[in-house]
Amino acid sequence: MSPAASTPVNGANGVHSLNGVNGAKKQDRSNLIPFSSRLKEGRALAEDVWSIFNAANLPPDCLNLGQGYMNFAPPAWVTEAAEIALNDVGPNHYSHPKGRMRLRQAIKNLYGPQLGRDLDVESEILVTSGANEGQYSVFTAFLEAGDEVIMFEPFFDQYLPSVTFNGGVPVYVPLHPKMTSAKPTSNDWIIDFDELERAITPRTKMIIVNTPHNPVGKVFTREELEKIAALAEKHNLLVMSDEVYDFLVFDGKEHVRIATLPGMWDRTVTVGSAGKLFSATGWRVGWLIGPASIIRPTLAATTRIVFCTNSPLQEAAAAGLEQVKERGYLQQTVKEYDERRLTLTAAFDRLGMTYSQPEGSYFVLLDISSVKWPDDYPFPKSLHGRGRDFKACWFIAMEVGVSSIPVSEFYCEEHCSIGESYARFAFCKDVDTLNLAAERLQALRKFLQ
Amino acid sequence: MSPAASTPVNGANGVHSLNGVNGAKKQDRSNLIPFSSRLKEGRALAEDVWSIFNAANLPPDCLNLGQGYMNFAPPAWVTEAAEIALNDVGPNHYSHPKGRMRLRQAIKNLYGPQLGRDLDVESEILVTSGANEGQYSVFTAFLEAGDEVIMFEPFFDQYLPSVTFNGGVPVYVPLHPKMTSAKPTSNDWIIDFDELERAITPRTKMIIVNTPHNPVGKVFTREELEKIAALAEKHNLLVMSDEVYDFLVFDGKEHVRIATLPGMWDRTVTVGSAGKLFSATGWRVGWLIGPASIIRPTLAATTRIVFCTNSPLQEAAAAGLEQVKERGYLQQTVKEYDERRLTLTAAFDRLGMTYSQPEGSYFVLLDISSVKWPDDYPFPKSLHGRGRDFKACWFIAMEVGVSSIPVSEFYCEEHCSIGESYARFAFCKDVDTLNLAAERLQALRKFLQ
Repeated sequence: MSPAASTPVNGANGVHSLNGVNGAKKQDRSNLIPFSSRLKEGRALAEDVWSIFNAANLPPDCLNLGQGYMNFAPPAWVTEAAEIALNDVGPNHYSHPKGRMRLRQAIKNLYGPQLGRDLDVESEILVTSGANEGQYSVFTAFLEAGDEVIMFEPFFDQYLPSVTFNGGVPVYVPLHPKMTSAKPTSNDWIIDFDELERAITPRTKMIIVNTPHNPVGKVFTREELEKIAALAEKHNLLVMSDEVYDFLVFDGKEHVRIATLPGMWDRTVTVGSAGKLFSATGWRVGWLIGPASIIRPTLAATTRIVFCTNSPLQEAAAAGLEQVKERGYLQQTVKEYDERRLTLTAAFDRLGMTYSQPEGSYFVLLDISSVKWPDDYPFPKSLHGRGRDFKACWFIAMEVGVSSIPVSEFYCEEHCSIGESYARFAFCKDVDTLNLAAERLQALRKFLQ
Repeated sequence: MSPAASTPVNGANGVHSLNGVNGAKKQDRSNLIPFSSRLKEGRALAEDVWSIFNAANLPPDCLNLGQGYMNFAPPAWVTEAAEIALNDVGPNHYSHPKGRMRLRQAIKNLYGPQLGRDLDVESEILVTSGANEGQYSVFTAFLEAGDEVIMFEPFFDQYLPSVTFNGGVPVYVPLHPKMTSAKPTSNDWIIDFDELERAITPRTKMIIVNTPHNPVGKVFTREELEKIAALAEKHNLLVMSDEVYDFLVFDGKEHVRIATLPGMWDRTVTVGSAGKLFSATGWRVGWLIGPASIIRPTLAATTRIVFCTNSPLQEAAAAGLEQVKERGYLQQTVKEYDERRLTLTAAFDRLGMTYSQPEGSYFVLLDISSVKWPDDYPFPKSLHGRGRDFKACWFIAMEVGVSSIPVSEFYCEEHCSIGESYARFAFCKDVDTLNLAAERLQALRKFLQ
């Protein structure tokens, strides 16, 4: 392990010297320290879909419906609270690792009634550096090496490496698209409950529920959640319920929180996000709600991982939650997103293409099986060995100028063929952009078969 | 593992029901899911020193010199950039996991020359959610279960659980206080290099260097760093150099970056912090600088842990770094901190108490061996079984109204007696507060023996 000779300090040109002292044997010093084997699992070092479909690789005027962030700003009445915080002293400094009291109180007041509980701000609410870091902390707090975590496919791609980094083993259960009707919806993606129960072993520790679902847009029904709850009870599973799109449910559907089902509070951690709710994905403020037995170990984890979440934007998130009711913000937001949703899906309707109408979230899955490209189309190397959907999304972005994300990325290898038929389009964009995208998408017609 | 019967949903009063269905056998559902064994190590669930010496437990008008955050605001010319960002669209949304280009460029321009390198913003700089999360990500990226990490005692208390959470084994090497002169300094805390080399085993993966040092204030000399570098070379160790106080070096001392020593760039990751530099500890913006072989795996880790760092405060940090030179900010800052340092240490001088004059950072270690309290003094239960320094700090806070932090917390059990003689006082407070603290501290005189 010990290098035979030390090398001179590298020059300011950034080029590594390969000459040892006295011009002796050349030594490659570009990889002295081996990285952890945990990075070899969970696709941690693979070129991910976000890098391939990065704006830099696409035409400059391509409309980005690939990535799930808004092209509009957070409400001014939320942002203003951050500005006030920045001009104060305390809110520029460390917050308590549990989160700022004002924000915990605002979470209690808004979500307590929805959960039917008088939440304890000291032991049942935890502010995290985005929902993502919150979920990572739950894995750190609860996974033992070899513990299995069940996730439905397609899955939010961060789950996989977050589980494996903490020693867990992902177990995949696909949602099955039964899109037989003329107008299928996201709830035509079905759970096979026998398949789900067969996936449970004595090592299963946790199940991840994501409703409304990214990328399918499925809003899990009460009946589905009751069946999941019964399995969680039977096998003593921790339920991580990722509900970051809880405010985006369309067509009068009901968002059911699994934590409110009989007995489920004791084993469920519910995940929320200020970034999604207030169109501020770059603020990195999220939260967890659950019993003290889940929040306390997770607090121990998050305290060491990030120590605390940034203070000024916690103040903004608190101000936002405090005012949503009086401002009718949730009703207004769902109305705006509904218009965005229908603008995009109308374009698919005009093309006669099949998609599943999302009942929640801001994603639509379009069936791209009918898109046909020339055999000699010049695809980049990065797509070699990837699913058909990678090529379809690339082709649509290059020829039509609208980017989307191939869905096979959100499946394990074994089930990847289900995802290959779909592209994910995000409609968290202003209506002008969506109208332009809708218009451009009509050019797809000549490539449909 | 499977509960015999499910319980009814808990009522809104937050009290857990212990009655099963049909009033059958009572079942305790308050701890259904066991947390990970990693929380049992590294003091993760112990009541830490910050909770015991929390403001809430101390007299309401107690001056808080315990915790290391400022009681003043960041410079307005830095904060303004956050406000501009908040009023834009893009800087409210996700940043690249590597960090915003403007910030990476600003880091390159300020620190590249200090490191003697033309830093590559794509592969040699990584923005993290505070220096803390950056360091956590390095552990995640490089530690294999059982890998040993050497840290000098007293150590920044977050290192310990951050190492154990990632499967590492902390190995402690104490700095030895040889404070024999009338006016000892932080550099009278000495490394025994034989002891250091004896601590290295075939499983040693990493050594943590922290200069200027928290809590000692020691500025490691070039000679000391050269000896550490030689051992790192000999045993192929990764060096994590925590330099978050790099801008606070007094008395004309030199801050040496270990990454600039011959050959060390290839194995060193240097840690920086916008929170420390710009008096904004609650912004959670830090960075790592190092070779691609260290930054790339760490990027893979941080991308999964937090995805990215908050965007508006990255913009502010970038604006800050861009302007430090033209504004003479570093010179001004060190001058202001020097006044704060001397205000506090003058109070100790007046008392005739021994302390080590810090040559860097914003902490002073006061020797509290001579403080004597009544045998029947009513200490709270939380101090039982803790070192003598816990009692001394508590006594000083209650009787004199100035809080500090007991230093034995920053040692492993074996070496804890070294720390028991010291209390850490933070002087990152405005001069008025420090003058008041200095005055109050004179009341200690009657308790000295």
